[in-house]
Amino acid sequence: MINETENPWKTTNTECVYESAWIKVVKNDIIHPSGNPGIYSVVHFKNIAIGILPLDDDYNTWIVGQYRYPLDAYSWEIPEGGGKKNIDTIESAKRELLEETGIKATTWIKIQEMHLSNSATDEFAVIYIVRNLSFHESSPEESEQLVVKKICFDDLYQMVKKGEITDSLTVAAVLKAKLMMAEGEL
Amino acid sequence: MINETENPWKTTNTECVYESAWIKVVKNDIIHPSGNPGIYSVVHFKNIAIGILPLDDDYNTWIVGQYRYPLDAYSWEIPEGGGKKNIDTIESAKRELLEETGIKATTWIKIQEMHLSNSATDEFAVIYIVRNLSFHESSPEESEQLVVKKICFDDLYQMVKKGEITDSLTVAAVLKAKLMMAEGEL
Repeated sequence: MINETENPWKTTNTECVYESAWIKVVKNDIIHPSGNPGIYSVVHFKNIAIGILPLDDDYNTWIVGQYRYPLDAYSWEIPEGGGKKNIDTIESAKRELLEETGIKATTWIKIQEMHLSNSATDEFAVIYIVRNLSFHESSPEESEQLVVKKICFDDLYQMVKKGEITDSLTVAAVLKAKLMMAEGEL
Repeated sequence: MINETENPWKTTNTECVYESAWIKVVKNDIIHPSGNPGIYSVVHFKNIAIGILPLDDDYNTWIVGQYRYPLDAYSWEIPEGGGKKNIDTIESAKRELLEETGIKATTWIKIQEMHLSNSATDEFAVIYIVRNLSFHESSPEESEQLVVKKICFDDLYQMVKKGEITDSLTVAAVLKAKLMMAEGEL
């Protein structure tokens, strides 16, 4: 019998072991579902991860290139950013898209929600496709060194298919958009 | 001019602030690409995240239900596990699939690689589709309380489409498999 509502893990102590502006690392003393004691460390994320795939009438899109410090590698991705949990996610998404690419959109379609790494973190991501675009001035954060590139969606799909793009939000957004196009939903 | 090989971030000091069996949290003093100093905390993952989507000849698959401690929520997912970086990922995948579901497969297709959260972690994930299945005894780890369920792939696709499944590896695996089927690759 599956009980999907009862948490089979018991927490006997909780200690914050590290905190930054973006994450809080908590070490929990726990009792496993099996009854044995153990430790479960959880990385709590303070922001919601947001990804936005813009699509114009000719099925062009815009991607952002940047050097990702945690990977020590360059990465091409859909426009992404973090949204505070006490702010409507779509408002954060509009701000990020405009800041990074200068794009505004009048049609916002939430296409996917994901938990990115649910064995170790509580990070939550929301992905949008946006249509009916207009173009304005961008204003990237000074900590970022971003390159914005316009490409047709099918070229982006091929980049994902060939494994040239590995960012999870971009992979999910592109696969989902391609399926929506195949199913006549875009 | 885009230089995709040069790291524009400079690291001036590195300190390990927390370590467990699964993660190592490192606080880096850095110089932003803009030239300003700052702190960049990175969560290093000791294991590779592995997801496996089994498909039998009738396009049935197997999913695993468990209570995910970091989310404080129940989650249905493809069979998943962690692989040590010094072990061939496919060997870890074979072990995890057999342990969790009792399934062995003779055909292994690597369908996707992803970095799950590249602004804060270096976690890397590999996803397989496996075919030509045989069924044996499972032996889940004692810390896990897993429920394994056989369902047809299209029902799983509908669960993803409706947002009932949010695990990033499962979302990517199912979207990719559906596209491969649509494109005659599966």
